[in-house]
Amino acid sequence: MTQHSAHPTSLTLLGLGAMGTALARTWLAADHTLTVWNRTPTRAAALAAEGAGVADSAAEAVAANSLIVVCLLDDASVQEALTGTDLTGKDLVNLTTSTPAQARARAEWARERGARYLDGGIMAVPPMVGVPEAGGYVFYSGSPELFEQHRKTLGVPLGTRYVGRDAGFAALHDVALLSAMYGMLAGAAHAFALIRKEDIDPASLAPLLAEWLTAMAPSVHRTADQLRSGDYTKEVVSTLAMQVAGTPTFLRTAEQQGVSPELLSPYFALMRRRLADGDGAEDLTGVIDLLVH
Amino acid sequence: MTQHSAHPTSLTLLGLGAMGTALARTWLAADHTLTVWNRTPTRAAALAAEGAGVADSAAEAVAANSLIVVCLLDDASVQEALTGTDLTGKDLVNLTTSTPAQARARAEWARERGARYLDGGIMAVPPMVGVPEAGGYVFYSGSPELFEQHRKTLGVPLGTRYVGRDAGFAALHDVALLSAMYGMLAGAAHAFALIRKEDIDPASLAPLLAEWLTAMAPSVHRTADQLRSGDYTKEVVSTLAMQVAGTPTFLRTAEQQGVSPELLSPYFALMRRRLADGDGAEDLTGVIDLLVH
Ligand SMILES: NC(=O)c1ccc[n+]([C@@H]2O[C@H](COP(=O)([O-])OP(=O)(O)OC[C@H]3O[C@@H](n4cnc5c(N)ncnc54)[C@H](OP(=O)(O)O)[C@@H]3O)[C@@H](O)[C@H]2O)c1
Ligand SMILES: NC(=O)c1ccc[n+]([C@@H]2O[C@H](COP(=O)([O-])OP(=O)(O)OC[C@H]3O[C@@H](n4cnc5c(N)ncnc54)[C@H](OP(=O)(O)O)[C@@H]3O)[C@@H](O)[C@H]2O)c1
Repeated sequence: MTQHSAHPTSLTLLGLGAMGTALARTWLAADHTLTVWNRTPTRAAALAAEGAGVADSAAEAVAANSLIVVCLLDDASVQEALTGTDLTGKDLVNLTTSTPAQARARAEWARERGARYLDGGIMAVPPMVGVPEAGGYVFYSGSPELFEQHRKTLGVPLGTRYVGRDAGFAALHDVALLSAMYGMLAGAAHAFALIRKEDIDPASLAPLLAEWLTAMAPSVHRTADQLRSGDYTKEVVSTLAMQVAGTPTFLRTAEQQGVSPELLSPYFALMRRRLADGDGAEDLTGVIDLLVH
Repeated sequence: MTQHSAHPTSLTLLGLGAMGTALARTWLAADHTLTVWNRTPTRAAALAAEGAGVADSAAEAVAANSLIVVCLLDDASVQEALTGTDLTGKDLVNLTTSTPAQARARAEWARERGARYLDGGIMAVPPMVGVPEAGGYVFYSGSPELFEQHRKTLGVPLGTRYVGRDAGFAALHDVALLSAMYGMLAGAAHAFALIRKEDIDPASLAPLLAEWLTAMAPSVHRTADQLRSGDYTKEVVSTLAMQVAGTPTFLRTAEQQGVSPELLSPYFALMRRRLADGDGAEDLTGVIDLLVH
């Protein structure tokens, strides 16, 4: 390269599963020089036809470029694939799903081997890759210099959101958002279960549910304000006392509809515990305190 | 009245708690002739100054109009308030939160007393009443004739959504949506708990959470399609097998952050049960089957 470009036009990708393959295609489509490697070589054939250079080993793939993106099954497969490669002076970007502790350990491991490290948590599924309108993105954390230097390249397949120097923060944000989503899906599952035995079309409930959940999602801003101030009685819409008083209606309705309350009752139990401990004028935010030990 | 207006300009409201008072104000503001009654008479004083007629007893209030709206604490208070009133020929609209079974029994009870009956489930809090931009509304079910005749009047304080002849359906929709919301709030509580011990501002997580939950809420449409067709492998984004494989990352992260998994683990347990029973290529929809007995 004759100039210090803000984004290199050359990179290596290890891992051509569903996600890796989708990522690879976007870099090729954007005219990047891409070297790929996959444990099972057959998965690289289609990409070779699209212009990717195929390395015979992970070591060869790592040697080919300074920017190395890894998207493998799990942290153990990253360990296995990178063992025997020379990471000295490399920029290692690990998009493999990990826990925060795994990401931190991997960052330290990379540092010991002379590499800068950036961890990523992918908030998208393969069909969203390369489709900006789909809104998919990657949380990044770790080396801010690495992120700044490569953000354009990293931004080709999906949006980029840098969440801090701590290499574990990308994974933590990823897990936090997906955990919240599973809660929402659990709630929606309970809702669909409630109408199962009635003459109500699930497709007539769905838009009501989607609209209601969308209307209620911004309540997390109020929760955050309350957490920051420590004052859980701030701008309360429905008090803990009122909401605990309402829970029997939810549990009785579940019972009448033949629906197990197992997805709702743990939250209600924490609401009751918080009320027993304290202030009925609070919001539901105190439940969070009961979760952390 | 000299013409058959689509909305009467005269009605009775029983119950002047937080919600009843908010409803009353909107009818007065819209120049309706309103007769009110509340068990504790002092709560009617402010409304009298705003133009409401105050009845000395529930019986007198019921006698004053043909449209009777009730917004009391619970079904037992409705029973108590209406005992000794003459409901013959009345249109009774009950906005008191009930279970579907209570609403059905109340409809039958009203029918036996010569009244038409409409049940309502309020999807709003008092500050949203009379504020159309806030998007609050009431689910109605029961007599379609009553609903048609009074929909304009009923639409003064909040939007109206009629969900069927079965008097229990309004309560069922109300409970279904709120149950789903509690799931979402439980998920968000877990997410906030995960960052508690880190140097991450809850106010920086909140917009990410709100955006993610909003983006994921429309997945209920896919769930509904799958439920209707019975084919849970239709248009799957992430398979049950992949998602079950991912759950250890969520549980380990919770453990590492010192967060109890109690709000997430019941859903994960159902995902695992469904996978053990069957088809890993399915979506998460099969969990719903496990909830209903
Ligand atoms: N797919 C999604 O929707 C999605 C969404 C967000 C995040 N992610 C994350 O992205 C990463 C990749 O996901 P994916 O969907 O591409 O998975 P996948 O389709 O199952 O592919 C797994 C990849 O890991 C490789 N691999 C597994 N064990 C290995 C080992 N011991 N040594 C070397 N390579 C090994 C596989 O190679 P072989 O071809 O040789 O088996 C394959 O390239 C995962 O961490 C996943 O959690 C995926
Ligand atoms: N507030 C909300 O955010 C909200 C949201 C959705 C739905 N709702 C539903 O709306 C209904 C009313 O709620 P609210 O917030 O107005 O409640 P509230 O402020 O607690 O008022 C309760 C009302 O019920 C009356 N009442 C209680 N027991 C009675 C009895 N045995 N006989 C006669 N009257 C009795 C009270 O009269 P006294 O003044 O004499 O005590 C008062 O008028 C409830 O079913 C609630 O679930 C409320």
